Order: sequence, then C-alpha cells, then structure tokens
Amino acid sequence: MLVVKIGGGAAIGAEAFARFAADLATLTAEGQQVVVVHGGNAEFSALSAALGMPPRMVTSASGRVTRYTDRATMDAMLMAYCGKVNKTLVGALQAAGVNAVGLSGLDGALASGRRKAVLRGTEDGKPKVLRDDHAGTIERLNLDLLRLLLGGGYLPVLTPPALGEGGVPINVDGDKLALELAVALGADGLLFFSDTPGLLRDITDEGSLVREIDAAAPEAALAAASGRMVVKVEAALGAVGRGVGRVVFADGRAERPVRRALDGEGTVVRAAGVAAETAP
Amino acid sequence: MLVVKIGGGAAIGAEAFARFAADLATLTAEGQQVVVVHGGNAEFSALSAALGMPPRMVTSASGRVTRYTDRATMDAMLMAYCGKVNKTLVGALQAAGVNAVGLSGLDGALASGRRKAVLRGTEDGKPKVLRDDHAGTIERLNLDLLRLLLGGGYLPVLTPPALGEGGVPINVDGDKLALELAVALGADGLLFFSDTPGLLRDITDEGSLVREIDAAAPEAALAAASGRMVVKVEAALGAVGRGVGRVVFADGRAERPVRRALDGEGTVVRAAGVAAETAP
Repeated sequence: MLVVKIGGGAAIGAEAFARFAADLATLTAEGQQVVVVHGGNAEFSALSAALGMPPRMVTSASGRVTRYTDRATMDAMLMAYCGKVNKTLVGALQAAGVNAVGLSGLDGALASGRRKAVLRGTEDGKPKVLRDDHAGTIERLNLDLLRLLLGGGYLPVLTPPALGEGGVPINVDGDKLALELAVALGADGLLFFSDTPGLLRDITDEGSLVREIDAAAPEAALAAASGRMVVKVEAALGAVGRGVGRVVFADGRAERPVRRALDGEGTVVRAAGVAAETAP
Repeated sequence: MLVVKIGGGAAIGAEAFARFAADLATLTAEGQQVVVVHGGNAEFSALSAALGMPPRMVTSASGRVTRYTDRATMDAMLMAYCGKVNKTLVGALQAAGVNAVGLSGLDGALASGRRKAVLRGTEDGKPKVLRDDHAGTIERLNLDLLRLLLGGGYLPVLTPPALGEGGVPINVDGDKLALELAVALGADGLLFFSDTPGLLRDITDEGSLVREIDAAAPEAALAAASGRMVVKVEAALGAVGRGVGRVVFADGRAERPVRRALDGEGTVVRAAGVAAETAP
C-alpha cells in the first residue's frame, strides 16, 4: 500500500496531474494499491481573493500561524478542494485509465474529528478572539470505505476538509490526513510531493537537498531545518516510528514523479536499522 | 429502490437539506435503499456572477436555450455542484446519521458520455459558433460502484457533471441523470423536488397543481403544460414507460418532503393500468 500526497502549490496543476496519472496507471496495473491525498491551497487562495475574502492570519501564543476559516471561507475551501482540484485530478486519472473516486473527509465519514470553533491569538499584532472558526483535528478514519473501494478496483482520491460534529466541515491539514491514513493502513510507503525537489537546507537553494534522514539520528536534519520543514520532518519521523515503511519528500513537478520518489529521488526518511534502498 | 432528485433552486438550501436528511434517516432506517441526485444551479449562478462570468445563453435552431460552458465556467460548475452543494448536503445527511458519500459523474466513471464541444445558435439575436463548450449527454452508468456503496450501507449523493472523453467534465442535466439512474436501477420510485408544489398549469399560481398524470392518457397534461414543464412531463412519462414504478414532482421546501411525496402530495405520474396509491 502506497499513500501519495500531492501538494496544492501553484506549480502542481493540470499538467502535473497528467504526469501523476500516467505514472499511477502503470503502478496500479502492476498491482500496487494506492491511495491519493491532495491539497488545493493555491486554488483556494485564488478563489478567496477573487471572491474578495483575503486570508485572515492569526498567530497563536506558541507562534503557530493559522488561517481563520469562517463559514464563507469554508465554503470557498469546499469549492476549491472538493470541487475544482478533486474533480480535475479525478478526470486526469480517468483519462489515464485509472478508475479514481474522489472523496472528502465528510464522505462516508472518511475522516472525522473535533472542531475547535474559537481561535485565539494575534492578528496584525492585535490580540483577537475569533469565533465560528472551522479548524479541527482528525480523530477517526473510516478504513472500511477505503477498503471497499480498493477491493472494488477503485483508486480513492481524498481531500480535506474532514467531518466535524453536526456535519460541519472542519479544516484539517492535508499532510496530516495522508500521514494518519498511511499509519492506519500500514502503508509501506508515504510520498509527499510539493514544488521543491524535497526538503531543502536552504529554501532558496534547490541544490541544498537533504538526501536522507535516518530516524535513529534525526538531530542533524532537524538542526538544519526551519519553519514548515521542521513540522514535515517531525511528521515523517512520527510516521516511520508508527510503522510506515518509508517516507519520501519528492518533486511534484517532475516527469514520472511517483517512480522517481520510489527510486529514492528526494529526501528519504527511513526507519532506524533499515538499509537504504534505491529501487521500490 | 428510490431515486430522489433535489433541485438546485435558491429556496432549497441548508434548512431544506436538514429536512431531507431527517426524512431520509428514518426511511433508510426502515431498510429503504435510496440514491440522491442533486442540482446546484442557484449556487452556480451566484458563484459565476461573483467571479465576473455572467451566463452566455445560446438559442439553438430548434429554440432550445442552453448556457455556454467554457472551461472557466465548467470550473465554476465543479466548485458549486461538487464542492459547496454536494458537501453541504453530505454534511447534513451525516449529521442526521445517514452515512452519505458524495460523488460526481466523473468519480468511478459513474456517469460518462459524449462531449459536444461546438455550440451553434444565436446569442443576443446574433448567429454564433462557440467552441470549447463542455456540454454532453450521458451514455453509460457505472452501476457497480453504486451497488458496492449501497451494499456497504452508504447512501450515494450524486451530482453533475459527467465524465467525457479524455477525462473532461461535461455538463449534463441533473434531472436526466436521476431519470437514467432510476431506469437502470429499476427504481420503484423517482421523486423530483423543486421549489414548487409540483407541476403547475399556471407557473404563477401554486393553486394550479396538476395532481395526477396517467401515462395512458397524458394528452390533457401535456396540452396544459408549457416550457420547462413539457420537458419534465415527457421525461416522467419516459421513466414510467421504461419501468420506473412511479414518478412524483413534489415540493422541496416542505417538512418531511420525501414522506409527503411518497404519500402522493405533488404531481403523481403513474403507469397505465396501475391504481393510484396514497401510501408508500
């Protein structure tokens, strides 16, 4: 089982989807079971801007920056993630002969959890308490639905949001959704694709790629990491620690992106004591 | 098997969805299998207007008026139908304890067909040939996916668009999708809900409800019908002629909308020689 997370950056659009689709068509034809999770942040931001809803960013006491998601913003998220991006990706996979089925976390309660409706922190330097936020955390997965679809020969294509109490959609992190799925499904691979060649020591220099992180000695990688990269490295270490065979951060803009990641191109995070592999 | 089509008019929003959800929760708990199909026209129009894409209406030689759907308009359709409306309805059903799964025609190639990319006719009185249209007609249904989900205890919630050649989404009529599904599934009931009490002789007078149409003698109903109603009556007659037990046009704004329609409130179209029923 392979969990493939396709990031929602602006550089990963229709052309990249076609490359993923071609690659996944050959992999699934070889019998590989795959679950795809995708983001949609670039489309979400573009739609929000076009609708006159600029992002409201709130910084928590611990320094974490989150986007305030009121109901109108959540509707825009549903439109971008579940509407445009999910169905465009499903269409690309169908065109390549992969019988993809696109689902959000709400569908079949595939990913459900707890909503945190009150957002506290500072906005533009001023303390704020914002209500009606639609953020939340995943607490349960419906693996039965995934297994039903996989058993029927379908490739599930999943996207946030998740299902909160009272049927309310909650904004959950797509990377976290992919990670929880990979752990729950006992995946032997979890591949994170974004618009960089992998984890970079210097975010402005694609040549500063970290080739490998040994879960037994991650200190060097974490020391060199910064910002969003720290979160990703910690998540990858967590996944490997919870039984996922291998985590790779790879380039979503490349030709044959999945094959390349499986061949070890990108940043490979492997469990302690497991020899590095160069072939799938 | 019951196929329930929920229209996409502005009067059928979150509150109506909650009423449908409560009603469907009790029906499915009694063992009734249900497939829901929904529209989204009001949300689609509102989104298009907000994005600065007013509808371009083209009148064919035969007098049929259609909306020109270029790629940007199709993206707005995906966002409104598959994003906001589909997931809001799924959320309402989940809140009522119904394990709904929302899907478009693209997902699992649930409804696929032929794209007609060239639209000919007149726009604002001028002859036009518009290319890159995303209209089409349904040619195939994937009933296996529906049966897989129904067998697993899920309630499928379906929406246009359908899947065209090359993975391209095609705009198909939601009523037609519901009708084809009802015929293919051998449904004993097909219920069309919109923001009127049923088919009206005079569209401005809710008191002019047509209570019953006998498929053996539809002339009177067709003679009194006009515009969009003719199309609906013909579709209902076609469905009954192709084996659907009963078609009801009913009020989507009512309390207990599904129960009321099953009790015969609205316009009931029944097959020749079948006695009128007043209970499900």
